[in-house]
Amino acid sequence: METSKILEEVVQTMHTISDINAAASILNWDQETYMPSGASETRAEQISTLETLAHQFLTGERSRHLADKISGLNGTADSEPLLKLFIHDFERASKLPEDLVRRTSRAQALAQDTWKHARTEKNYAKFQPVLTELVNLKIEAAERYGYVENRYDALLNLFEPGMTVTQLNPVFDNLRTATAEILTAIAPNLDKVSDAPMQGSFSKEKQMEFSKYISGKMGFDFNNGRIDLSTHPFCTSFSQYDVRLTTRINENDLHSCLYGVIHETGHGLYEQGFAAKYARTFAADGASIGMHESQSLLWETVITRTEEFWTFALPKFKEIFGESVAKYTPRDYYRAVNTIKPSLIRTEADEVTYNMHIILRYELEREMINQTIDLKDIPEIWNEKMRRNLGQVPKNDAEGCLQDIHWSFGGFGYFPGYTLGKLYAAMEWNVLQTQMPDVRSKIANGDLMPIREWLRENIHQYGRSQKPAEIIKRITGKPLTEKDFVEYAKAKAMDVYQVR
Amino acid sequence: METSKILEEVVQTMHTISDINAAASILNWDQETYMPSGASETRAEQISTLETLAHQFLTGERSRHLADKISGLNGTADSEPLLKLFIHDFERASKLPEDLVRRTSRAQALAQDTWKHARTEKNYAKFQPVLTELVNLKIEAAERYGYVENRYDALLNLFEPGMTVTQLNPVFDNLRTATAEILTAIAPNLDKVSDAPMQGSFSKEKQMEFSKYISGKMGFDFNNGRIDLSTHPFCTSFSQYDVRLTTRINENDLHSCLYGVIHETGHGLYEQGFAAKYARTFAADGASIGMHESQSLLWETVITRTEEFWTFALPKFKEIFGESVAKYTPRDYYRAVNTIKPSLIRTEADEVTYNMHIILRYELEREMINQTIDLKDIPEIWNEKMRRNLGQVPKNDAEGCLQDIHWSFGGFGYFPGYTLGKLYAAMEWNVLQTQMPDVRSKIANGDLMPIREWLRENIHQYGRSQKPAEIIKRITGKPLTEKDFVEYAKAKAMDVYQVR
Repeated sequence: METSKILEEVVQTMHTISDINAAASILNWDQETYMPSGASETRAEQISTLETLAHQFLTGERSRHLADKISGLNGTADSEPLLKLFIHDFERASKLPEDLVRRTSRAQALAQDTWKHARTEKNYAKFQPVLTELVNLKIEAAERYGYVENRYDALLNLFEPGMTVTQLNPVFDNLRTATAEILTAIAPNLDKVSDAPMQGSFSKEKQMEFSKYISGKMGFDFNNGRIDLSTHPFCTSFSQYDVRLTTRINENDLHSCLYGVIHETGHGLYEQGFAAKYARTFAADGASIGMHESQSLLWETVITRTEEFWTFALPKFKEIFGESVAKYTPRDYYRAVNTIKPSLIRTEADEVTYNMHIILRYELEREMINQTIDLKDIPEIWNEKMRRNLGQVPKNDAEGCLQDIHWSFGGFGYFPGYTLGKLYAAMEWNVLQTQMPDVRSKIANGDLMPIREWLRENIHQYGRSQKPAEIIKRITGKPLTEKDFVEYAKAKAMDVYQVR
Repeated sequence: METSKILEEVVQTMHTISDINAAASILNWDQETYMPSGASETRAEQISTLETLAHQFLTGERSRHLADKISGLNGTADSEPLLKLFIHDFERASKLPEDLVRRTSRAQALAQDTWKHARTEKNYAKFQPVLTELVNLKIEAAERYGYVENRYDALLNLFEPGMTVTQLNPVFDNLRTATAEILTAIAPNLDKVSDAPMQGSFSKEKQMEFSKYISGKMGFDFNNGRIDLSTHPFCTSFSQYDVRLTTRINENDLHSCLYGVIHETGHGLYEQGFAAKYARTFAADGASIGMHESQSLLWETVITRTEEFWTFALPKFKEIFGESVAKYTPRDYYRAVNTIKPSLIRTEADEVTYNMHIILRYELEREMINQTIDLKDIPEIWNEKMRRNLGQVPKNDAEGCLQDIHWSFGGFGYFPGYTLGKLYAAMEWNVLQTQMPDVRSKIANGDLMPIREWLRENIHQYGRSQKPAEIIKRITGKPLTEKDFVEYAKAKAMDVYQVR
């Protein structure tokens, strides 16, 4: 009785905070899609006002009272995910003094601007002072959040609850070794696979039509979502009933729009799949960056890069673009979309070498936060790691250590989530194949809804009410491992590059 | 010194409240333009959360402190419009107890639903109970707001600050008489004017292209605004740097899109024209509904319904739609867009008979709020007034007293603003012609920017920092009068219908 009364109050408070956050997200979405350019400055102020309000509500008097009441329940709260989440978010937000929050947000705003200029000028030295300030602020935050073993864990936890350096290190080491093995194995046949089928002239309208068709087949509910254009593709949601995807279109390359939409649809299905009872609460969110990425990557890099997917998609592809364009076989498309090629830019990397980009960033971040490297050495270390891992050397800082926006917005601890997503996705894929033995023939028939239902049942509905480790253990029966991914990636690479 | 310190705090508070209100407006705009249909319920909750927050901020502890400080200034505040507006809005919002606000907002939400059903079923009896509840709530609000002479004044003031029944009655009486005179005068020639030039087949894309061209010529800044489609045309803004217009398109009738866009552009120019210093404050709004309507109507019914406008617009019109469609003379278009025809539906009425629709609603509202009529008699009184004023008798309640949404959202006191807009517009037009003697030849040359500049200089920049009566007096040297409109409408009717 008492618990249910407190829960009701907590849910009320979550509604208010979630509504404010949703409004901020809508303002952000509008900014990236339809907002006239002259509105940028005022829009930034409006978003900042909403974010400040949400933070004030979360850490305010009313929340403190509620947190006290929940503590008074002596553990009964443990069985109610919303109470646990409330306490967790309240305590985490309360650990940072308002002054630190304000200084950090100011520094981040400034840093993004400086980063843009530094990147344009290909000059890391210009970025170094603000990076130093941000690293110091993040160190202060990490100290305040607290950690058991490694200071970096405190930041990692913001994006991947429960994850530690101790857990990541061996996983990433093995991954590095396996990647090198794959690259060595396919080296002799590198020029035997071409992505020509994805190149050509494809009108924007037709690309959008085809992409929306695939998104719909995956089970994206257009009654509760939509797809628009933006400079950088993203997925955002204002509730599970309103999920917005964006994409961009390159008229000479099918890849960007199609796989962009598939990727964002994977995220979107997660967002549309939260249990109704979690609407407008703190549980209506992904379990972590890694778990969210596993949902986009399972679709983008695994399911829709099978030969079976192209068997299903080709007739529609022909219908929309015509036989003269869609003139390859499913196997040709399958090979084209699975080419492996070491490159300098993370966002353009294939699924195998991509992880090397992440490991590099992870190692650098970890050292920065632990103050074991000198920040002036970043470009040199970056370039050396690139040479060693991928045989690539950046010609300048713009295609080296200045290529990502993440550090400039203070996202230390974010990068590992991209690779964790691949590892989770491979683990999920293996279980899915076991539990749905005909999954490949389902894909070949375009019968993708059972996959969405499986994901909804096993992952989506829980939202943030379970931690990523709990989810992956519940589904696969084991903790995080790189083995499934390595096995999957090796098998595909050998098949695509015809290495025996 | 003290004043400037208080002003700074007031502006800070206004920023927060304005930002929350802007966010609510963005959520509303999105709902009407791009939101997927499944999101309606959650969106309503989100908007309601923001509106509640804005009201709490406006009436909260911090605002009360500021209001006390301003009172302590002993009149110094009178010279600072923002301080006056703050006190005004704070006091007005504080007059209604939270319970009344909540009951009213619940009743209004319910009433809109009931109204929709009642209108579909053409059955006023179904709407009467909720109308009764709303009228009672508005009477309670009026009593709490306070008034000097007439209870209805308290509501009128929400939309037209300073306006009274005593001022309106003679104006509206004269207007009714003049309208009857015009209708009698043109009666013999009624069938001599045809709106055929506006009928035909006009593609959506071309209508939008033409309408945007005209909007741009009027001076609408697309760097700080945009035009989208929605079920009902509207203008909303999230700051003077982000003004959104919408329109709808009828492929068989040019009128709806073109004059819809022109009308909303008139509103939009007002919103884009507020002084920069008023950004994110309570002054960044129209002075009143009437003043806002005068800006849309001056463009829609006066400037762009001149023969000169069509002289300018015709070449572009031909270029877009082709000579076979744009085959009439400027004078033909001028006459076509100025046809007068008594009709049952307000939103479809011409500029002359339109006022009769408003006067009818004004009289009914006034009586309802003063409890001098029985609400069950509304349909009968409505139909009798329509018969007497316009010789039209509704066949049912849907084309009679249930046609407007306004009462269902509690907008008692709103309607007079539409006619006040026409009266203000005619007064403004006369002064404009005096101060800019070549205005008609400017229009014929498509040189519309000087008109926008004149409006910006004389009206727009002030936003809500001056009351409508102050503005109209400052510009025209006289108080509100119907004379300018009557003279203007008579002259045009005689010209269009060739009555001598």
